Amino acid sequence: MKQAAYVAVDWGTSSFRLWLVDRASNVLGERRSHEGMVAAGKPGFAAVLQSHMDAVGAAHELPVIVCGMAGARQGWVEAGYVDTPAPLAAILRHAVVVPGQDRDIRILPGIAQRDRAAPDVMRGEETQLLGALGIDAAGEAVVCLPGTHSKWVRVNGGTVERFATFMTGELFDAVSRETILSHAVSGADDAVDIDAFESAVTASFDAPALAANLLFQVRSGQLLYGGTPSAAREKISGTLIGLELAAGLAGEMPGTGITLVASGRLQMLYQLAFDTVSVPVRSIGAEDAVRRGLAMAAQSIWNA
Amino acid sequence: MKQAAYVAVDWGTSSFRLWLVDRASNVLGERRSHEGMVAAGKPGFAAVLQSHMDAVGAAHELPVIVCGMAGARQGWVEAGYVDTPAPLAAILRHAVVVPGQDRDIRILPGIAQRDRAAPDVMRGEETQLLGALGIDAAGEAVVCLPGTHSKWVRVNGGTVERFATFMTGELFDAVSRETILSHAVSGADDAVDIDAFESAVTASFDAPALAANLLFQVRSGQLLYGGTPSAAREKISGTLIGLELAAGLAGEMPGTGITLVASGRLQMLYQLAFDTVSVPVRSIGAEDAVRRGLAMAAQSIWNA
Repeated sequence: MKQAAYVAVDWGTSSFRLWLVDRASNVLGERRSHEGMVAAGKPGFAAVLQSHMDAVGAAHELPVIVCGMAGARQGWVEAGYVDTPAPLAAILRHAVVVPGQDRDIRILPGIAQRDRAAPDVMRGEETQLLGALGIDAAGEAVVCLPGTHSKWVRVNGGTVERFATFMTGELFDAVSRETILSHAVSGADDAVDIDAFESAVTASFDAPALAANLLFQVRSGQLLYGGTPSAAREKISGTLIGLELAAGLAGEMPGTGITLVASGRLQMLYQLAFDTVSVPVRSIGAEDAVRRGLAMAAQSIWNA
Repeated sequence: MKQAAYVAVDWGTSSFRLWLVDRASNVLGERRSHEGMVAAGKPGFAAVLQSHMDAVGAAHELPVIVCGMAGARQGWVEAGYVDTPAPLAAILRHAVVVPGQDRDIRILPGIAQRDRAAPDVMRGEETQLLGALGIDAAGEAVVCLPGTHSKWVRVNGGTVERFATFMTGELFDAVSRETILSHAVSGADDAVDIDAFESAVTASFDAPALAANLLFQVRSGQLLYGGTPSAAREKISGTLIGLELAAGLAGEMPGTGITLVASGRLQMLYQLAFDTVSVPVRSIGAEDAVRRGLAMAAQSIWNA
């Protein structure tokens, strides 16, 4: 039987994922829950971690490597930031030990861009970057990590040079739930209306200033010409993703195109959006990336 | 004593305003409440109207002219649309009589832009336009009517040629209440942080594609450098208004600049935004405009 070497945890704002891993990076057990930073505050981070370790039969003394919002000021223990330009290797050197525990628990820091003209922060994505690019990535890469707060990151020779966060996912949720457009999308099924999505991406990519108008057209178009709730949802999503791409692709691109770190529906939508604007993409699974990044950290810290 | 000639009502989605008016357009009484289209559905539109007429001592048999969402499909009686190109005078000719009433109540129609590439609708703003420009306005005007759903309208020789709706106000509400930025603005006082507003307008006006990134900077800037809740609120507002202006001002402008139809805080913010991007503005009060538009309708329909 394979023997567990460490526990890896991706602890986001609203999600918790845990893997029990052996020395050869095999996953021996896995847990996922909604006990993210916000929900974990009440029972306490240590208790939440322990309950999931028990559930996968992890020995109490195993070391634990954590990334994400558990390291935020409002999280478990503040893990600070590495400032840009930030070598990805520096992330590993600045892992913070959670004090007062009877085992070794460490939280990886985030990255901060201390630029008054473009202040920005990430927490969790640095570990995905590590896993996606490797610790000593040669050459230049522009990496797009879609999500509630999408990140666009320029990495050169293993160092994060600059990055920008776009509130795309959170805007999508707020707009489709809390505005007049909630009526337009109500009752949408899971099937993606590809035509509606692509034409919305094109419209806002070509004229980003029109974003707030294109969103209203979801309503007025349905009022005057009808249309399905799914088409309305895809128009909102396409408008916001097209807006993000217009900014993200405005700078100089490496010849290799974009590295997309995403999974599931988001992966599919962003892939479609990049195809729509004819930009080549290398796609890496977001979950693979974070697990690989955590494995690199465990390897570097404990030689695990 | 002055004698009332008619009752004028501006019935929006979430607001109700009523004026008791004499033949010389003097206001003899006034009411305002939150019984807009949504809230009025339950007690019924007729009951809400009657209660406010009673409150200002209006005789039951007085004719009533209404504009706004009371004429929507989900409103009192559907008043339809005049299609673009829409002569403002046509609005008056297409007022719809509310059936089954023992007095003359009429609702003014909206305007629809039946263009599949840019479908749009307005309801209420056509009456403001009428009041702001007059029924036979000569020459060209670009009119900006800020609000929950801001309208930009091109009027030529008294005819609405084209218009576009921007969800600016509703985006502001959704973003500052329902996203991570709600923490940043929490506790903001009434004083306007003019510097924060102006620099946000400039940033998104100059680079509209960055809108979703500039919004996140409200959060990351506060995290890394501090800042007041008011500054955060003005940055959100400035970003969204700057985005709107970038689109609204992209077309060819009449030499006279922009006609701004707005009141109160919105008037102040938009005036500031136009000043920031050096565009001359002629400002007209929104409430005056709608009252004048309703008076023109009453005059034309009842010679009141």
